[in-house]
Amino acid sequence: MSDSKLKVVVCRDLGPDVMPLLLNNPRLDVVVWPHNSACERKWLLENARGASGILVMLSEKVDEELLNAAGPKLRVVSTMSVGYEHADLKALLTRGVRFGYTPDVLTDAVADLSVMLALMAGRNTKETTEAWPNFVWSPFAFCGPQLSSTPTSPKRTAGFIGFGRIAQATFARLVPFGFQHCLYTGNAKTAPDPAADAALAAKYGVKEVRRVELDELARESDAVFVLAPGGPATYHIVDEQFLRQMKKTAVLVNTSRGTLVDSDALAKALHEGWLYGAGIDVVEGEPQVGLDHPLIKAPRCVVLPHIGSATNETRLGMATLTVNNLLGGVFGEEMPAELGTSR
Amino acid sequence: MSDSKLKVVVCRDLGPDVMPLLLNNPRLDVVVWPHNSACERKWLLENARGASGILVMLSEKVDEELLNAAGPKLRVVSTMSVGYEHADLKALLTRGVRFGYTPDVLTDAVADLSVMLALMAGRNTKETTEAWPNFVWSPFAFCGPQLSSTPTSPKRTAGFIGFGRIAQATFARLVPFGFQHCLYTGNAKTAPDPAADAALAAKYGVKEVRRVELDELARESDAVFVLAPGGPATYHIVDEQFLRQMKKTAVLVNTSRGTLVDSDALAKALHEGWLYGAGIDVVEGEPQVGLDHPLIKAPRCVVLPHIGSATNETRLGMATLTVNNLLGGVFGEEMPAELGTSR
Repeated sequence: MSDSKLKVVVCRDLGPDVMPLLLNNPRLDVVVWPHNSACERKWLLENARGASGILVMLSEKVDEELLNAAGPKLRVVSTMSVGYEHADLKALLTRGVRFGYTPDVLTDAVADLSVMLALMAGRNTKETTEAWPNFVWSPFAFCGPQLSSTPTSPKRTAGFIGFGRIAQATFARLVPFGFQHCLYTGNAKTAPDPAADAALAAKYGVKEVRRVELDELARESDAVFVLAPGGPATYHIVDEQFLRQMKKTAVLVNTSRGTLVDSDALAKALHEGWLYGAGIDVVEGEPQVGLDHPLIKAPRCVVLPHIGSATNETRLGMATLTVNNLLGGVFGEEMPAELGTSR
Repeated sequence: MSDSKLKVVVCRDLGPDVMPLLLNNPRLDVVVWPHNSACERKWLLENARGASGILVMLSEKVDEELLNAAGPKLRVVSTMSVGYEHADLKALLTRGVRFGYTPDVLTDAVADLSVMLALMAGRNTKETTEAWPNFVWSPFAFCGPQLSSTPTSPKRTAGFIGFGRIAQATFARLVPFGFQHCLYTGNAKTAPDPAADAALAAKYGVKEVRRVELDELARESDAVFVLAPGGPATYHIVDEQFLRQMKKTAVLVNTSRGTLVDSDALAKALHEGWLYGAGIDVVEGEPQVGLDHPLIKAPRCVVLPHIGSATNETRLGMATLTVNNLLGGVFGEEMPAELGTSR
């Protein structure tokens, strides 16, 4: 019966809570990259041969080469990520290979991190966490802009570049901080929908949810959140021109993809004070981010190692969903989150 | 006419936006500590002589010695802080010296910081902000407990030691993170008030606001916020016994006074994993906090330099209120926030 087993290749060990879903399945022949590091390309191409399913991380390119190496038995590629800029969707479609990903399950974790980074940028934790033991207290030491509204500064506006699930979950968290205004940029292919905006404003109990052009968003926002997909359409959408229009008291948060923000322009902006601070979880060119990277050296800039979804609950949920997508694809059944069919 | 001027002593320069309120008043003789550091005691005692008003920071002890040095003309002491553990209220009362402080105005700034520290503790920013360039990504690297609720972990409980204005403002911010349960410890001198609790739960749209004993709060909370006043009644209220009862996935936040938390016990708890992480803005014995302090060396512990109210908007508001309290007291008029009369 061993011949009838279906081969699946798994590019990362997903731990003792999730791997048994694969390893204990008698219909599967499971091949797992054996190291705690990114899967080597050579190993992946060799082991993909004859596979019915491949489970990848963001680090594995899913392209013609890999699909050719796997051959005609391949039915599904399942990625443990909500983004899929590492996958050639056209090549998958041409071959009839299904593709699974992990939307929704990480929404709250990334929204949490987005709020945290907005707070950390304003409170300048890059310096304040390192203040002990040598600093002199004074009435205005360490003071930056306050995220919350105050009686003397009552208006707070959040600006979202991209306004999907994560952006909306982030805004929901900002409402009790006094954010009554929500601006966002929309996909150029779709028309503005004032009725939907009004419905959202009512849902959140705020004065305004409104689609605007990028320039107005830059000018009006106290906190700008970059939450659009990566890829050519959004490359360096936050550039020098955008940053020069921001309020001097505003903060910029990027928890989507590094390519959306021009790192050199942001570093220059922070050095020259065009905006107050930045909190970024993603950097163009990561993981090649050395201590001499302009954003690591920039003042009032917090740089995290892409941990948006890194909580126990969420990563467990992502890993489980990734495996269930793989199983659904391999056995020709429904996949819980298949790209193109799920919403 | 110079003889009729009233002397006021100001222990810190409050900057160009606020000092003119004093310096431009022709009825005042204003003496200002001339350095950007804590006011020296010797200077204060000498200059206090004959003063009608003294404006102090948390760093200045307001005791018999200072009141005696000032003498019988003293009408008011005004502190730029919401806390007043540095002031001998009985000695002030005995002499009929009024006392001003700065409640309310810093509520939102400290609530912001409390939420930030809960997030930073759970996301272990002590390590994650220092991760570049040397770390290995893996599916569960950097993972800790998620502040937000998730479908597989839907219950979140916030616990407040002290449930005044700042605690309630902090809880309001946590509601969209999925916190449906709010526990708090009350002042032993007051009776529980279930009707008031139910009204608060309705206001926040949550399942539960409930006064509990300290042990239950320790056991049930996913995030514990220490927000009670300092002083003997709350000294080391968070001790080894409390910490041993906390959830291993919980975080502790202290944004009130360092004396409420036993630093050695907290460091031990973090090393041994009794709780997940801690975010503290105040440390017993501050500002004597060296790099060998047990909490600076403890894992998953963020230690900030007492910046709860340190935003431009709030410190400006506090400084203005402190000056207005001083003016009201010196001229025998209403003080905007006088202890004992304001709420």
